[in-house]
Amino acid sequence: MSLDRMIENIRRTGNPTVAGLDPKLSYIPSYIRKKAFAEYGETLDGAAAAILTYNKALIDALCDIVPAVKPQAAYYEMYGWQGMTTLTETIAYAKEKGMFVITVGKRNDIGTTMEAYATAHLGKTAVGEQQFSAFGGDALTVNGYLGSDGIRPLLGVCREMDGGIFVLVKTSNPSSGELQDQLLGDKTVYRTMGDNCEKWGEELPGKYGYSGVGAVVGATYPSQLSELREALPHTYFLVPGYGAQGGGAKDVAGAFDRDGLGAIVNSSRGILCAWQKENCAEEDFAGAARREALRMKEDITSVL
Amino acid sequence: MSLDRMIENIRRTGNPTVAGLDPKLSYIPSYIRKKAFAEYGETLDGAAAAILTYNKALIDALCDIVPAVKPQAAYYEMYGWQGMTTLTETIAYAKEKGMFVITVGKRNDIGTTMEAYATAHLGKTAVGEQQFSAFGGDALTVNGYLGSDGIRPLLGVCREMDGGIFVLVKTSNPSSGELQDQLLGDKTVYRTMGDNCEKWGEELPGKYGYSGVGAVVGATYPSQLSELREALPHTYFLVPGYGAQGGGAKDVAGAFDRDGLGAIVNSSRGILCAWQKENCAEEDFAGAARREALRMKEDITSVL
Repeated sequence: MSLDRMIENIRRTGNPTVAGLDPKLSYIPSYIRKKAFAEYGETLDGAAAAILTYNKALIDALCDIVPAVKPQAAYYEMYGWQGMTTLTETIAYAKEKGMFVITVGKRNDIGTTMEAYATAHLGKTAVGEQQFSAFGGDALTVNGYLGSDGIRPLLGVCREMDGGIFVLVKTSNPSSGELQDQLLGDKTVYRTMGDNCEKWGEELPGKYGYSGVGAVVGATYPSQLSELREALPHTYFLVPGYGAQGGGAKDVAGAFDRDGLGAIVNSSRGILCAWQKENCAEEDFAGAARREALRMKEDITSVL
Repeated sequence: MSLDRMIENIRRTGNPTVAGLDPKLSYIPSYIRKKAFAEYGETLDGAAAAILTYNKALIDALCDIVPAVKPQAAYYEMYGWQGMTTLTETIAYAKEKGMFVITVGKRNDIGTTMEAYATAHLGKTAVGEQQFSAFGGDALTVNGYLGSDGIRPLLGVCREMDGGIFVLVKTSNPSSGELQDQLLGDKTVYRTMGDNCEKWGEELPGKYGYSGVGAVVGATYPSQLSELREALPHTYFLVPGYGAQGGGAKDVAGAFDRDGLGAIVNSSRGILCAWQKENCAEEDFAGAARREALRMKEDITSVL
């Protein structure tokens, strides 16, 4: 009913980071693509097969040193239902290897429709007398523009399935301030949404002081990260924007509490494309991802 | 590059409504479920097959009198990738029958990730030398909490594919005011988002005066509907909340312009469950849906 399992993974690995699995075909070594296309053709099935091979090798290379993976739904949807089979199998494989899975979907809707999303990504779908895990993640990112009606339907599913959510609070992109930095009375929109996370989180308390309702706060806004860490003591932060988007270790330092908890920092392209940046042999792509993950761990833990 | 094809369908049918395809298994006649379960078992495949049969029969019954369908992604995701095959086939079937397809996904993200969603739902996915339509809708609902960065990536795909988007402005749910009704300076959040729609829409002009950037505004807030119709002359409204959520024809009247354009009103449960409400024979479910669609058309056009 909270993010405790994620926190336990972070403690076990001593690593407050998450590997974003946002696979583009161009990130994938050509020998993997060729093999998949030889088997399935240059088709959505072929793309989905190449991505699955790539993801599994990355998960094998990272599962003992990185606590969590964060597949981005958009990059699977882009390959149609075939891509969604790869999302399903990637999630199952990461969980089998002991990783915590945060599905980035930024889903939002109301009432029974939001329940359907909660069921899809965190819960069990009933079919007649049977129950099935549709996508099977441990946590889901969600968007709170619709108000509490859009968040409450998730809380019951989180409680039942021991899952969590991360609500968009202050996103990492340049235009996030257009709405999120505006003042509602004497509080910014992002702070209002952050306070909502504390309130919603009361229904999903965790044993390490953090609830099952986390917040997405970008590494590209370090002062807001520190402000929110202070203001939201029970809300875990998922922090995108480190690396390719420009955030560094010093920028994320303020997201952590005194025990080095309170935040999990994402890297997607940094890890996925490490082999291209290193300019190593294609076949060493998973090794390069592991080296980058270890470098990132050192970089971030050095400021805690 | 706009919503012109939708407007032409509305004119052809004389019907400014859209049928929401938000299928729950409990809405589907038992003989259809039994047949699907007999073939595929009580599984996600079985559920997906039952929903596809149901949707196709509804599309057959509605395609000459209703201009558009609006599948809600959540109810397909709930059945996993198997459900997503049904979403894909439903969209293809509705288009084949001449209907305009609005996929309700409320998707949101930034930069290349938002491009991935745009590609998935409105564009073409490249795989090697080939290009594929992943889901293939004509328009997509999106959420603007992330600011312009989250909307701009859609505009190029809309232009290229002759598609459109509907941005959440004032949603139909009771708690939509928690954020959307708050004042940013002297304007509400929903009005600010509405003004953004006008601005974004300048890039996708249409020949009937309405752009490719529409807005979602709930039937449950009639005074805001009228306020926004006045303020946003180039923004088409997708209006949920008629029927089951409590909105009536008088409530949506203000959403229309003097020519009877400017809004398309959704009914989901009203149409999907018409056979249960009529208490007619299960086998007549599509006939009941057609009767309800005609009743709704009369009801809404009576106030224009």
